[in-house]
Amino acid sequence: MSTTFTMIGGEGPNSYQQNSKYQGALLEASKEKINETISTKLDIDFTSGLISIADFGCSTGPNTFAAVQSIIDAMEHKYQKDIEFQVFFNDSSNNDFNTLFKTLPPARRYFATGVPGSFFGRVLPKNSFHVGVASFALHFVSEIPKGVRERHSPEWNKDIHCTGFSRNVANLYLDQYKIDVRSFLNARAQEIVSGGLLLFLGSCLPNGVQMSETVNGMMIDIIGFSLNEIAKKGLIDQEKLDSFKLPVYLAHADELKRIIENTKCFRTEVFEKISHSKGEYQLDPDYLTVAFKVTVGGSLASYFGEDVMEKTYELVKEKTKELLPQIANAKPGMQYLIVLRKT
Amino acid sequence: MSTTFTMIGGEGPNSYQQNSKYQGALLEASKEKINETISTKLDIDFTSGLISIADFGCSTGPNTFAAVQSIIDAMEHKYQKDIEFQVFFNDSSNNDFNTLFKTLPPARRYFATGVPGSFFGRVLPKNSFHVGVASFALHFVSEIPKGVRERHSPEWNKDIHCTGFSRNVANLYLDQYKIDVRSFLNARAQEIVSGGLLLFLGSCLPNGVQMSETVNGMMIDIIGFSLNEIAKKGLIDQEKLDSFKLPVYLAHADELKRIIENTKCFRTEVFEKISHSKGEYQLDPDYLTVAFKVTVGGSLASYFGEDVMEKTYELVKEKTKELLPQIANAKPGMQYLIVLRKT
Repeated sequence: MSTTFTMIGGEGPNSYQQNSKYQGALLEASKEKINETISTKLDIDFTSGLISIADFGCSTGPNTFAAVQSIIDAMEHKYQKDIEFQVFFNDSSNNDFNTLFKTLPPARRYFATGVPGSFFGRVLPKNSFHVGVASFALHFVSEIPKGVRERHSPEWNKDIHCTGFSRNVANLYLDQYKIDVRSFLNARAQEIVSGGLLLFLGSCLPNGVQMSETVNGMMIDIIGFSLNEIAKKGLIDQEKLDSFKLPVYLAHADELKRIIENTKCFRTEVFEKISHSKGEYQLDPDYLTVAFKVTVGGSLASYFGEDVMEKTYELVKEKTKELLPQIANAKPGMQYLIVLRKT
Repeated sequence: MSTTFTMIGGEGPNSYQQNSKYQGALLEASKEKINETISTKLDIDFTSGLISIADFGCSTGPNTFAAVQSIIDAMEHKYQKDIEFQVFFNDSSNNDFNTLFKTLPPARRYFATGVPGSFFGRVLPKNSFHVGVASFALHFVSEIPKGVRERHSPEWNKDIHCTGFSRNVANLYLDQYKIDVRSFLNARAQEIVSGGLLLFLGSCLPNGVQMSETVNGMMIDIIGFSLNEIAKKGLIDQEKLDSFKLPVYLAHADELKRIIENTKCFRTEVFEKISHSKGEYQLDPDYLTVAFKVTVGGSLASYFGEDVMEKTYELVKEKTKELLPQIANAKPGMQYLIVLRKT
């Protein structure tokens, strides 16, 4: 059984749909720069009168609708003529597309389509989109590195993630991450038209900062700790817990930059740290618990069941309260806007 | 509150996904003719190396996968060169796309996309597909005719449908049906490339046969009767029941032919009655009850709630048993393959 990573679906109080303002704020802060980049760097031929936009890792909304609308606004501003827009909303086939489709903006000016499938491989035809976006999607790995998974390996990692304690473990994640970012970019390189743009929004680690020193790392450690408590109570099997690993890797800014630049099909037009008032998590145990439930909680639920997930997050909340002074002293993460142009 | 008409989702014992062999059999019987028509009538230019196929009213599968595969097989046979295929699966945004996406054939040779939205309007960009198919989709109306809905109108219809008792009521349905078929075809005329083909599979009434004389009509009458019993028991409000109408119209073959021929953008290449061994329903109360539950039951559930729907179908099963001798004497319906070519 492999770990899946799907945001919690639906529109309920624990859904990603209702709890993704943190992710949305980065887009808000990047809008002007996106507009400027599309205005100056996008260089496409669209004699067909159709512009296609794709969001890779769209989840259930509403952030994807805002991202797509920003791009459309920028396009209409740039071209000022009658264009039809088609939007490809991509995510894994486990994603809750039903919620996505039911909550599409009623006044949208585009034809909406859902594209199920892993963005590490091809999901669209050749030369089929002009501008792509991926928000908080470029920190996944497609599988847990073998050495980390296998109990007899010297790099076997008992924890649910590497938050910085073992360099060897982190290196194995990094190796896998390089493969995956390359797969992502190679797939997009075939799907995007020449001169088209790929926008990435997300977070990474500032150079020199350990994952365990950031709120992301601390919260993942708290989730790992809570799962261990649940195992001690006998509610889950310790061996099953030991096999649970989060398929996530937060690269350092320079690592990420280098990996991208090594892919020859794209030219890096923008690689910027975006600072904004909502760039850090609120220091509130309820908020933090929900923020890491709608994202990480889905994986827990599909691996251990809903019930264990809920019980775990009760402990997560308690522990977050207890550790709030440490969390208050966490080092800031880094949020970025990256724009690549297909050469 | 308007009546929606969505097949029951999921993969459970009462799902359309598990109970649509009746609809699938028509495709099976039409395959050879479809292959032949694509081979001789399709006349498109596809210098891009991409062929796009669309299914309008795809529901949850598996019939849509079989239909799409038949078309792809015919295309590969015709062109015998390296082509990429993209498939647009369209249905209303209430459709269970999650089930559709999770059950996509793993070995498919096409890029799958879901397109939410009513097929009575535009759902795709201009000139964006080459071959379209609609199976058991061309018997819906987009709304219940006003005269039929309004209690003070002389054509007010107390029943959940017109199964043939009132010519005036049927005529109002027919007027709406004409508008809707035209809207469907006008939208497709913009979306399909010149020389592209539209295939319709479905059922209609043979000329001269009343809906109430067919199994379809008899079963709808039984459902209406059962709902009335439920209302008499006080489980639903009689007024609410009186406002419930099925948005369905089964045209007579000649009516359908004429409506299509009056739309100037397409040329009728095939209009054929398809006779095959599974063209009639099995004479089995369990089978009949489930067949009309996975289709009509979804509307009942969304209007009256799951519980009322389940209770209604208990009565439907009893009544079907009781009326089996009459059902055995029903007049046969007609199943068709229609192929239109964009001029």
